[in-house]
Amino acid sequence: MTDTVFVLPERLRRIVEELFVRASVEPDNAALLADTIIEANMRGVDSHGIAALGIYLRRIRTGATNPRPRPRIIKEGVASVLIDGDNGLGAITARFAMEKAIARCQDTAVFLACCFNNTTFGAAFYYSKMAALEGKIGFALCNAPPSMAPWGGKKALLGTNPISVALPRRVGVPIVLDMATSAAAKSKIYLAKERGEPIPPGWALDKDGKPTTDPEEALKGLVMPLGGAKGYGLSLVVDLLCGGLSGGGCLDKVMSLHRSLDRGQNVSFALGAIDPQWFGGLSEFIAIVDEVVDKIHSCPVADGFDQVYLPGEIEERIRKVREREGIPVPRAVIEEIASEASYLGMEVDL
Amino acid sequence: MTDTVFVLPERLRRIVEELFVRASVEPDNAALLADTIIEANMRGVDSHGIAALGIYLRRIRTGATNPRPRPRIIKEGVASVLIDGDNGLGAITARFAMEKAIARCQDTAVFLACCFNNTTFGAAFYYSKMAALEGKIGFALCNAPPSMAPWGGKKALLGTNPISVALPRRVGVPIVLDMATSAAAKSKIYLAKERGEPIPPGWALDKDGKPTTDPEEALKGLVMPLGGAKGYGLSLVVDLLCGGLSGGGCLDKVMSLHRSLDRGQNVSFALGAIDPQWFGGLSEFIAIVDEVVDKIHSCPVADGFDQVYLPGEIEERIRKVREREGIPVPRAVIEEIASEASYLGMEVDL
Repeated sequence: MTDTVFVLPERLRRIVEELFVRASVEPDNAALLADTIIEANMRGVDSHGIAALGIYLRRIRTGATNPRPRPRIIKEGVASVLIDGDNGLGAITARFAMEKAIARCQDTAVFLACCFNNTTFGAAFYYSKMAALEGKIGFALCNAPPSMAPWGGKKALLGTNPISVALPRRVGVPIVLDMATSAAAKSKIYLAKERGEPIPPGWALDKDGKPTTDPEEALKGLVMPLGGAKGYGLSLVVDLLCGGLSGGGCLDKVMSLHRSLDRGQNVSFALGAIDPQWFGGLSEFIAIVDEVVDKIHSCPVADGFDQVYLPGEIEERIRKVREREGIPVPRAVIEEIASEASYLGMEVDL
Repeated sequence: MTDTVFVLPERLRRIVEELFVRASVEPDNAALLADTIIEANMRGVDSHGIAALGIYLRRIRTGATNPRPRPRIIKEGVASVLIDGDNGLGAITARFAMEKAIARCQDTAVFLACCFNNTTFGAAFYYSKMAALEGKIGFALCNAPPSMAPWGGKKALLGTNPISVALPRRVGVPIVLDMATSAAAKSKIYLAKERGEPIPPGWALDKDGKPTTDPEEALKGLVMPLGGAKGYGLSLVVDLLCGGLSGGGCLDKVMSLHRSLDRGQNVSFALGAIDPQWFGGLSEFIAIVDEVVDKIHSCPVADGFDQVYLPGEIEERIRKVREREGIPVPRAVIEEIASEASYLGMEVDL
């Protein structure tokens, strides 16, 4: 596409980091936020990559999101913590919570952190993977603003509430599942709109409840749940584990990232870690994971596929390409960032 | 169907219990196993109801399953336990594990029990619901013998590995999600075969990888994962949390319930409980659940649906009907049970 510019990841990272610092974010948090954005792009999860920067900066500028949050522990159990995110960008709370889960599960076997009062944390895999890189099993769930009807209904009540689980391997990148409980993540529909591309059939209904491939119509309508009743059930459970357990609230208590600029987004997370040492043992667990990986990779390939991938493996192939060729940044995204940058006295030339 | 007999639940329960006792199962465990079977039927999960009794008795008779297992704690952490199921019917291990999780999570906030060396535990909801009835959030996962290819593959490696989560309510039955990670549970295909009915399109492929609605062909072929790559990913994660974490083994280390009568089935479970008191508080959690229930029930209904149900709600309606009309028992199931009963010196007249 001529309307897309390719920017090398380290150059893009420096720009993102500087923009966050100019927007009053503390340097360490600015580096974290830049890393979540670049990592999303490097895995091809472009919806939570550079395309999200504009709205993050805009939320800070309008006062909707707190640039200098102080995540605060409200309650602490033997294997749990409840955290108030202080209406910051969610990555700041989520890193704090996940670091605690990773450290504490070594003593307790399992640990669960529930967090309320946040803006979105971006891509869920970032946090589950933190645990897997430390030899733990990591979980990351969050709720999201309503965009999906419960199965059998026709009003948006549920979010696309993702589930991410990451599992350590002996060598190589962890197995990383990261999936919306909708047929597709809503941010992918936003991205299709940015790019001026249609969406696949089965992703969404328009506002009259009719199937559509037009991302604009889809954004006014409803996202479809994964596999009907099952995706609805998973989405509801994720919402109750995040907004319910943390006390932050569920369904329409979660605000739109893009449209609710007069208040906090009120997103909740459930972040957990399991230490395999307390079960069959870490080396035994990793031996089983590696055996599973070998069997999956040796599976005969079905017609129309090139190979059988592990969850997260296609995404890691994208990384290799983008390390060389750069991250694609659509023209509309550049314009949005340039406009936000001008408020911060910075010229962005991509 | 004229070929189906309706039997009142209490009568069926007494017959099932007596058969297990005659098969050398201890009375308390026989009552538990009968309850898991009757409860499955009362919720309409007929695949794990009376239709499964014949194969349970046959496994005990042939020595494939231990009728008098002693579930043994192998390792215990602050918020965890690892249990060897001693090759018994899984309900015996799973009840033991779940009772521990429910009791212990009151002190630790979360608790996880991993169990290896079991025959299937039947329907997963039975165990997650135990926790929800005690004001906790309950989880039940298990692995299952290979019947599904990984996405992009054409060889059965993964099971239909179910996920069940149950959440407490102030009044009324808990919210109970219980779903296979395949498009449909394999046991539903067995049941269709028993009943001589076709299966819906999208559930399975025949042994040549072509779509089929014939349950016999489907059982020789492959079950399809829920929503393609996502169901595959969920199934893999469940397998690694059960067979991986417990050390019991994954993929083809799990044996067929119906066909492997020369050895243990080697099923593993992950059973967990969360106490909402350690997060936003139990009454606060239940208030949010009730608010969510109200909003789901008030959702405008889409064309072709009669109302919007909570996960598990349709199943509870089936209970009301079956309390009056009895549990449907297909003729083929009666014959199988009668044949097993004859080995135990009992005449079953349904």
